[in-house]
Amino acid sequence: MSFQNPVFIPGPTNMPESIRKACDMPTIDHRSPLFGQILHPARANVQKVLKSANADVFIFPSTGTGGWETAITNTLSAGDTVLAARNGMFSHRWIDMCQRHGLDVQIVETPWGHGLPADRYAEALAADKGHKIKAVLATHNETATGVKSDIAAVRAALDAADHPALLFVDGVSSIGSMNFEFDAWGVDIAVTGSQKGFMLPAGLAILGFSAKARAATKTAGLPRTFFDVNDMAKGYDNSAFPYTPPVGLMNGLLLASDMLLREGLDNVFARHTRIASGIRAAVHAWGLELCAATPDLYSDTVSAIKTPAGFNATEIVNHAASAYGVAFGTGLGEVAGKVFRIGHLGSMTDVMALSGIATAEMCMVDLGLDIKLGSGVAAAQDHYRRTTGQALQDAA
Amino acid sequence: MSFQNPVFIPGPTNMPESIRKACDMPTIDHRSPLFGQILHPARANVQKVLKSANADVFIFPSTGTGGWETAITNTLSAGDTVLAARNGMFSHRWIDMCQRHGLDVQIVETPWGHGLPADRYAEALAADKGHKIKAVLATHNETATGVKSDIAAVRAALDAADHPALLFVDGVSSIGSMNFEFDAWGVDIAVTGSQKGFMLPAGLAILGFSAKARAATKTAGLPRTFFDVNDMAKGYDNSAFPYTPPVGLMNGLLLASDMLLREGLDNVFARHTRIASGIRAAVHAWGLELCAATPDLYSDTVSAIKTPAGFNATEIVNHAASAYGVAFGTGLGEVAGKVFRIGHLGSMTDVMALSGIATAEMCMVDLGLDIKLGSGVAAAQDHYRRTTGQALQDAA
Amino acid sequence: MSFQNPVFIPGPTNMPESIRKACDMPTIDHRSPLFGQILHPARANVQKVLKSANADVFIFPSTGTGGWETAITNTLSAGDTVLAARNGMFSHRWIDMCQRHGLDVQIVETPWGHGLPADRYAEALAADKGHKIKAVLATHNETATGVKSDIAAVRAALDAADHPALLFVDGVSSIGSMNFEFDAWGVDIAVTGSQKGFMLPAGLAILGFSAKARAATKTAGLPRTFFDVNDMAKGYDNSAFPYTPPVGLMNGLLLASDMLLREGLDNVFARHTRIASGIRAAVHAWGLELCAATPDLYSDTVSAIKTPAGFNATEIVNHAASAYGVAFGTGLGEVAGKVFRIGHLGSMTDVMALSGIATAEMCMVDLGLDIKLGSGVAAAQDHYRRTTGQALQDAA
Amino acid sequence: MSFQNPVFIPGPTNMPESIRKACDMPTIDHRSPLFGQILHPARANVQKVLKSANADVFIFPSTGTGGWETAITNTLSAGDTVLAARNGMFSHRWIDMCQRHGLDVQIVETPWGHGLPADRYAEALAADKGHKIKAVLATHNETATGVKSDIAAVRAALDAADHPALLFVDGVSSIGSMNFEFDAWGVDIAVTGSQKGFMLPAGLAILGFSAKARAATKTAGLPRTFFDVNDMAKGYDNSAFPYTPPVGLMNGLLLASDMLLREGLDNVFARHTRIASGIRAAVHAWGLELCAATPDLYSDTVSAIKTPAGFNATEIVNHAASAYGVAFGTGLGEVAGKVFRIGHLGSMTDVMALSGIATAEMCMVDLGLDIKLGSGVAAAQDHYRRTTGQALQDAA
Repeated sequence: MSFQNPVFIPGPTNMPESIRKACDMPTIDHRSPLFGQILHPARANVQKVLKSANADVFIFPSTGTGGWETAITNTLSAGDTVLAARNGMFSHRWIDMCQRHGLDVQIVETPWGHGLPADRYAEALAADKGHKIKAVLATHNETATGVKSDIAAVRAALDAADHPALLFVDGVSSIGSMNFEFDAWGVDIAVTGSQKGFMLPAGLAILGFSAKARAATKTAGLPRTFFDVNDMAKGYDNSAFPYTPPVGLMNGLLLASDMLLREGLDNVFARHTRIASGIRAAVHAWGLELCAATPDLYSDTVSAIKTPAGFNATEIVNHAASAYGVAFGTGLGEVAGKVFRIGHLGSMTDVMALSGIATAEMCMVDLGLDIKLGSGVAAAQDHYRRTTGQALQDAA
Repeated sequence: MSFQNPVFIPGPTNMPESIRKACDMPTIDHRSPLFGQILHPARANVQKVLKSANADVFIFPSTGTGGWETAITNTLSAGDTVLAARNGMFSHRWIDMCQRHGLDVQIVETPWGHGLPADRYAEALAADKGHKIKAVLATHNETATGVKSDIAAVRAALDAADHPALLFVDGVSSIGSMNFEFDAWGVDIAVTGSQKGFMLPAGLAILGFSAKARAATKTAGLPRTFFDVNDMAKGYDNSAFPYTPPVGLMNGLLLASDMLLREGLDNVFARHTRIASGIRAAVHAWGLELCAATPDLYSDTVSAIKTPAGFNATEIVNHAASAYGVAFGTGLGEVAGKVFRIGHLGSMTDVMALSGIATAEMCMVDLGLDIKLGSGVAAAQDHYRRTTGQALQDAA
Repeated sequence: MSFQNPVFIPGPTNMPESIRKACDMPTIDHRSPLFGQILHPARANVQKVLKSANADVFIFPSTGTGGWETAITNTLSAGDTVLAARNGMFSHRWIDMCQRHGLDVQIVETPWGHGLPADRYAEALAADKGHKIKAVLATHNETATGVKSDIAAVRAALDAADHPALLFVDGVSSIGSMNFEFDAWGVDIAVTGSQKGFMLPAGLAILGFSAKARAATKTAGLPRTFFDVNDMAKGYDNSAFPYTPPVGLMNGLLLASDMLLREGLDNVFARHTRIASGIRAAVHAWGLELCAATPDLYSDTVSAIKTPAGFNATEIVNHAASAYGVAFGTGLGEVAGKVFRIGHLGSMTDVMALSGIATAEMCMVDLGLDIKLGSGVAAAQDHYRRTTGQALQDAA
Repeated sequence: MSFQNPVFIPGPTNMPESIRKACDMPTIDHRSPLFGQILHPARANVQKVLKSANADVFIFPSTGTGGWETAITNTLSAGDTVLAARNGMFSHRWIDMCQRHGLDVQIVETPWGHGLPADRYAEALAADKGHKIKAVLATHNETATGVKSDIAAVRAALDAADHPALLFVDGVSSIGSMNFEFDAWGVDIAVTGSQKGFMLPAGLAILGFSAKARAATKTAGLPRTFFDVNDMAKGYDNSAFPYTPPVGLMNGLLLASDMLLREGLDNVFARHTRIASGIRAAVHAWGLELCAATPDLYSDTVSAIKTPAGFNATEIVNHAASAYGVAFGTGLGEVAGKVFRIGHLGSMTDVMALSGIATAEMCMVDLGLDIKLGSGVAAAQDHYRRTTGQALQDAA
């Protein structure tokens, strides 16, 4: 198998050389002080990436899915009510997890391609006079549809109703790539994984907990041990995990978070916007549309692109892999076969993006779509050449 | 920090060069057929390492602790009774996890340094006419005390009582290093992690499930999603995980299991016995004793060495790290301060073992113990030189 | 600095992951049998890559320049006459080296952009009745101009004149990427380096010697020790070098040559032709011309592209580096400022090539050239999509 | 093959993890400014390692042997006289190279195991009234015999005779590990390689030239191109090599020299003395002797150990490799079969050294020598434990 071409899946991302080397670490004694020299600054860095002054950062050898489970099992009890919109595959899965843990999920069905409906959250919260709703779930960036939602608006809905529910945000495909404001948005639990904005291999669930979320652990009745944040906190106090930590990944996280902070979070976000804008320029040049209903919803980490009716979008993904050795993302769930996805997060340059656009064009022409070769590339080139700057190169 | 010296902790082990390179893998599309080419043979290999013809192998991005949680949450319901002996820190922790998940643990208290008391298991099972006991927990190799237990005897106890309870075995520090017979011992769930006999970084929980254990998942009431084996099985059917898999670690597992099988499991076990015997010869030459009460209990992966009364064994570990850059294991729980541990599993040669023995000697002399420099080394040398063979070199 | 974008210099090439790992080898005893297990099969493979049945393969810790020096110092004496055409920077440098070693070079001046003039070689050889010419130098692929020459025609010129001169061929930027026939062309010494068709880091000079060339070493008067092939041959007989060998690079050469042979040399060459053809389609779509005068001279490893009169082509190279983080090659010597070069040898996919073409387009537009964005990309896409095949992917 | 055990050859050394990673570098454009950012600080660092304020540092893709050739071909002409002592295999080889380049070598035969006889150098120089001797060759550390010589005394001999000859010093196995004072000793050319004190893979010749040596290049008649220091100097002025540089090795050299300077050269040398002293304590405990005739000659990088008459010392080396997977050095030339060598330079800890000593003991007992197991280990342990310090650990 060739590893020469970039990948264009919405995570795991292409990994910078330096991060791979940081992860590929020889064995050390994870109970020695050496581990603390990795653990503590890594956690402090993640806090900054979350734009939080006080969030407790927890890192588990797991994935974003494990992060979701950490969020609910540490703070809720069977029978508790949670409020959640379903507008894509990943919000769907989190809802499913809640139900399987015996939670009563008040689901706000939302068309795929739309953002979280803050107004309907507001209605539901206002209606919940008895505060049965213990937590509100919000997917910041729906990876399946390439839709970014307005978390500040969800917080505003909570505040407007003066509702004490916790706010849990899935930032798996946004944190580290798109603006995320733990403190300003009043987030109680933020969840992400290592393989997205942090550009690491999969294997870490990364969470921030507010003091309010930590307090909720005292009454939470759902059973947990592996994902228990209080055990984990006790471990951290001893520069350890309650079990064997994935030292190399933690070392990679330390470097990755250092890189993001050194570049400057706002520069990182601007870089993602720039790359994403080029991709979107190509989509428009092709005469195609994004799954995201309106421009304010466009994700800067992944674009889900609608193909013409009657065409199976998944064929593009399969053909790209077999004919050109390039990985795109398929549509999932309701949009399976209707969209294909280009992931453009993490360590992606304009030059890499252009090769993805060029490949997508070849695939679409190969499969009979009426696309002009070079058209999307030209639109993206025009954007990239007008916006290139040394900053971009320096960042990497 | 120096990475030149070997580590002598009972996992994570020293990692062979080739395994590190297999884990350090560039990003691939984990939903492409490439991943199946890693996943399926890795699972098939693990089955063979378990000496099982039919066990369902499950691998989670987690650790051995997550493996324990997988075992109980997939097969049991709150209020169920489990039978477990407590003879060390790791059996203690598994019991604690069960209790926190609402299980009723019938604890067979056993002196640390002793093996699982099959006779007392037999009594308890015979007494349980109503079959309230749903599962029997057995720690094959207590990493805290360096004690190996007789799992076949526990199975015999179950059989003698004609008891239907499931048999769960913690083989975290034995599987891949010491003989483990999933089928012959009638094991229902075996649990291990990546960082021991498989010589990988921490980050994988690895389990085998018998058909009977799989059947128990249908009635198990404990909530689970991340660790749900049926979701995972469905993922495997599509050459995938239900979430993002740790591809590099899986690729490492494929190579590690290949290496073990190519060497031949019995050769691997003999190699561990040979290295361990040299360490034990040194301990005896020093005039010290192992924590393990009798020779039949000696573990071939870790030796817990008792220091004289009044001496704090943990000082040896701290001094070895600070003065010589060498990592040993401390005593845990009841034996904290009373023992220090030398881990000798995974990719360890006689030459490496000798450097660990020599370091331990220097530390003990530095700290005032009445040990003759070179005495343990000479005893181990004598053992190693009488037993060396090309097999050893070929193995590595 | 970012390492995310491919390089488009005519060597060192982009390196496959597996080759990098083969080179990154821990220290072994280079006098142990382990080294022979690398050395002997690597040399046998290189012989096959040269399409030779009997050539003696020599490998020095050096570069192609060291290879040239090896050729002349082992076979010639001060005052000897050699015949050489000068049609580019690299033929020029070899001539210069000969002169500095006291050889009398009969130079056939040839316009840059043209191939070796076999007819003028023929004239010179026919005129040399006294056989003063001891060696004929021929640059198979002029890296500076992207011009491939006809070595068989040079051999024919020697044969027509029944001339005993040795035939030395610089195949630095052709061997392993373009067809090279040591035996069929009657080559006496072939020279290459590790960083081109073998896709390795720089650091090895790689040579083939015919029996006739070996015989010439007996009378050669030029002093040499480091580059002495007879010392080296004696080393090889003991599975060694006469000094410390670069073991990791040798291990990389073993793998690289294995990869080329497994893919099949003709498949490798066809792959290079396919990638190069796409680049050339782009050049033509831009309305630009190659430095190579006629299509039969087009190199499949590097394209030197002429920019309009009055434009400094080197600006493209500088701008690509600073604005887009992409490396092209500048013009050298006579064509400095008149051409820029795209290297497309080694481990290069169509997808990577498209990103290079797209970058060149952006640069040219940025610098005011009248180029249509996407035009070259579209021409290359058209070529690539019509010619893609699984073979391509399997190769890498 | 196993890479788990350290090597005990006198170079290439065991490589620190960080240095291996620095060498394993992706392809960059070696003509871009990036390369200058490696080249210039690496050269400046090497100058400091040589303890020189003004030496011109030259680095060639080659080995120490190439460095010798660089020294003589850049400064001398055929027929020139050089003065050299022969006291081991490496001084012998350098003499041989001189003779093959047409130099007239005035050889001072010296018993192997003895140092350079400064008094006899003094006599020869005093006798050379006509200043026929153009260069004096001095091997600082004879790797074959483990003998360190007094270069300051050779300089004193030159000064006493008021002789203008150049002083060339082979510091291949001393520079970076043992004190070397380019300026204070009035060295004109110092030669080393990458695989010794710099702990890199083989592949670089590293030289310092005094202004006087540079001046000699103007009249030097020996032909050279690849090794021409003036071409190289011109390249450096353009942040380049005159041919393709080995970028990864240069990057490794930058890190390695940084590491040496950060540790402090005197600390590095003290560390080598400490490790070597432990080895020597073991040798004495075994009742054996070093090849080096007197303690002032003991090398801190390699110990050549004499075995009893009638015993073939090479058997120890072969047996260590086959029975224990450990590499020692054989005796070379006059001392072949009479000594075996333990290399202890570069990145070697006391813990690693003890494993080498223990292995040597097992081998000697296996082969019938009257050695007490553990005896050398105990002597070395005693030395190491009395001299350990945090400095040691911090250094690595």
